[in-house]
Amino acid sequence: MEPRERETATIPASQTGRRDPASLFEAARSGHRAALGRLLSLAERSGPEARQVSRLVFARGVARHVVGITGAPGAGKSTLTDKLIGVIRSEGSKVGVLAIDPSSPYSGGAILGDRIRMSGHATDDGVFIRSMATRGHLGGLALAAPEAVRVLAACGYPTILVETVGVGQVEVAVAAAADTTVVVVNPGWGDSVQAAKAGLLEVADLFVVNKADRPGAEQTRRDLESMLDLSAGAESGRRAASGAGRDVTKWRPPVLSTTAASPSGEGISELWEAIDAHRSHLEDTGELETRRRRRMLEEARSVLVAQILFEIQAAERTEEFERLEAALARREVDSYEAAATLRAALGVSPR
Amino acid sequence: MEPRERETATIPASQTGRRDPASLFEAARSGHRAALGRLLSLAERSGPEARQVSRLVFARGVARHVVGITGAPGAGKSTLTDKLIGVIRSEGSKVGVLAIDPSSPYSGGAILGDRIRMSGHATDDGVFIRSMATRGHLGGLALAAPEAVRVLAACGYPTILVETVGVGQVEVAVAAAADTTVVVVNPGWGDSVQAAKAGLLEVADLFVVNKADRPGAEQTRRDLESMLDLSAGAESGRRAASGAGRDVTKWRPPVLSTTAASPSGEGISELWEAIDAHRSHLEDTGELETRRRRRMLEEARSVLVAQILFEIQAAERTEEFERLEAALARREVDSYEAAATLRAALGVSPR
Repeated sequence: MEPRERETATIPASQTGRRDPASLFEAARSGHRAALGRLLSLAERSGPEARQVSRLVFARGVARHVVGITGAPGAGKSTLTDKLIGVIRSEGSKVGVLAIDPSSPYSGGAILGDRIRMSGHATDDGVFIRSMATRGHLGGLALAAPEAVRVLAACGYPTILVETVGVGQVEVAVAAAADTTVVVVNPGWGDSVQAAKAGLLEVADLFVVNKADRPGAEQTRRDLESMLDLSAGAESGRRAASGAGRDVTKWRPPVLSTTAASPSGEGISELWEAIDAHRSHLEDTGELETRRRRRMLEEARSVLVAQILFEIQAAERTEEFERLEAALARREVDSYEAAATLRAALGVSPR
Repeated sequence: MEPRERETATIPASQTGRRDPASLFEAARSGHRAALGRLLSLAERSGPEARQVSRLVFARGVARHVVGITGAPGAGKSTLTDKLIGVIRSEGSKVGVLAIDPSSPYSGGAILGDRIRMSGHATDDGVFIRSMATRGHLGGLALAAPEAVRVLAACGYPTILVETVGVGQVEVAVAAAADTTVVVVNPGWGDSVQAAKAGLLEVADLFVVNKADRPGAEQTRRDLESMLDLSAGAESGRRAASGAGRDVTKWRPPVLSTTAASPSGEGISELWEAIDAHRSHLEDTGELETRRRRRMLEEARSVLVAQILFEIQAAERTEEFERLEAALARREVDSYEAAATLRAALGVSPR
């Protein structure tokens, strides 16, 4: 279907719409933004072309630093990301942004408000911003996000910001795919119970109290510090009980304050320094390698699960399956028995 | 391991700690709360006893109405649930509450604050409240929640409230497991973009603006109504384009206001009426049956995926897998190739 002619990388961006992955990759690496966009689109899909993109970027797509930015809707993550881009650019590094855009698991539609706010960097060739819709099932995003990170890294964006919306487990999972995870809270929002509820304590490498010019910012900082005290206390208790000594290499998430929306972007430079310090810590302790290794494994697992889910859906388009569905509805078989039937249809050996 | 003696259901609750599922089920059905608690604990685990519980309750565990209550942390879902229990009890029905408690995907700990607030019904035998921690992976909760609903229904609690925390996709998924989903927002929180972001428009059968005594409640209601207008407009456009007529059986989610924390529980009776009206709508249109049928299917799929994930984890404890992990880390194989190796280890036929 796609034209297969190979051209030099100097074709105009407008002609990169229908080209094979290898040519697109070449064009993207020499700075064609439209080619990069198209490459990312291919990577998001499934099928042989996505697989080809994956192969092309896999070994080359090692980012210097992947920074996840997460927190509740409305916490100001987009504005913060926008200002961070400015700081990173002022240091000369190119930066890729993956904005995991909210979309319903049903309609698949994405909201573009955040991206419009980020348009201050629209004319900067050192910045590439990509929106990615969260999909119906976990596998989609869990696979598509690291793939997109690799594409961006392989095409010359060594620093990648991954901004996610919401504090659900999908977002936590995506945050866990970053080297460094920044959790953004607001004054008054983050009282200890609510922040702990969202499972943020465990994923945060740094906390940011954004909108710090509002009342209650100092209290929120103190709450977070107390929670970290509690959590550190529990951990050292566990370590003592297990006979282990104090872990001197342990990172305690710093709590920073920003007013990202202020003209000067109050606190943003300090935030970027702290993010960078976390990267150094990861590298010095060997944790960077460990985290990345764990992520690769997690991804391989996600690939397999996604494939199997896909095959389950295919297996469900059979007459046998319709009978099964009717029996389930009449509660003649239960979900375990139905799963066993599905499993047999997939050719998975029973255990 | 478990003593197998069968006793009458009149044993003291304190002795129900170690009994087989069938006896526990008998005891729970005749009102022994401790037996019901133990039965739910068994059902939450995996293994032969969980399977036995599942078989016992499957056909009998059809609730009259399963109501999901979801929304952002801090929206007041627990207080609302507490007040709904009061209304349901005043109508004479017994009510089971499944509180999907927030816990980190890492530590597995649950926060008990919500349950303490709900303790007003602690001495009412017509109310059974169960906290359930969200687990590391989706499969756990997606399976455990409907199982717990069936246990509660089979043991004499025909109305089940499932309260979830947060608006992440896990919560959306659990909400989708209910017959009726109530989405709780607060004044000022739910501006149209943020609510749409959380994927709430598509899952809501009813919206509740809670804390309606605060400023901005009316604006939030209007925002929600506008979003519903837009969404209805888009849908009727799609229907017109496809040649279908107007769907007279279509339910438009009503937007209600409550002040659950007020002494009189402002708006709660009206909320319960609206919830009940939604159930009637589901029944009249045949949608109740359709939804439940879809859920059963979804559950069978989840069972299979959970089993396969479990087997992947087992497959990973081999030497072959350690070699694979090292190759992945060196980027000699990519995640797709690693998935294929895992797949072979599982005995899943390649496609």
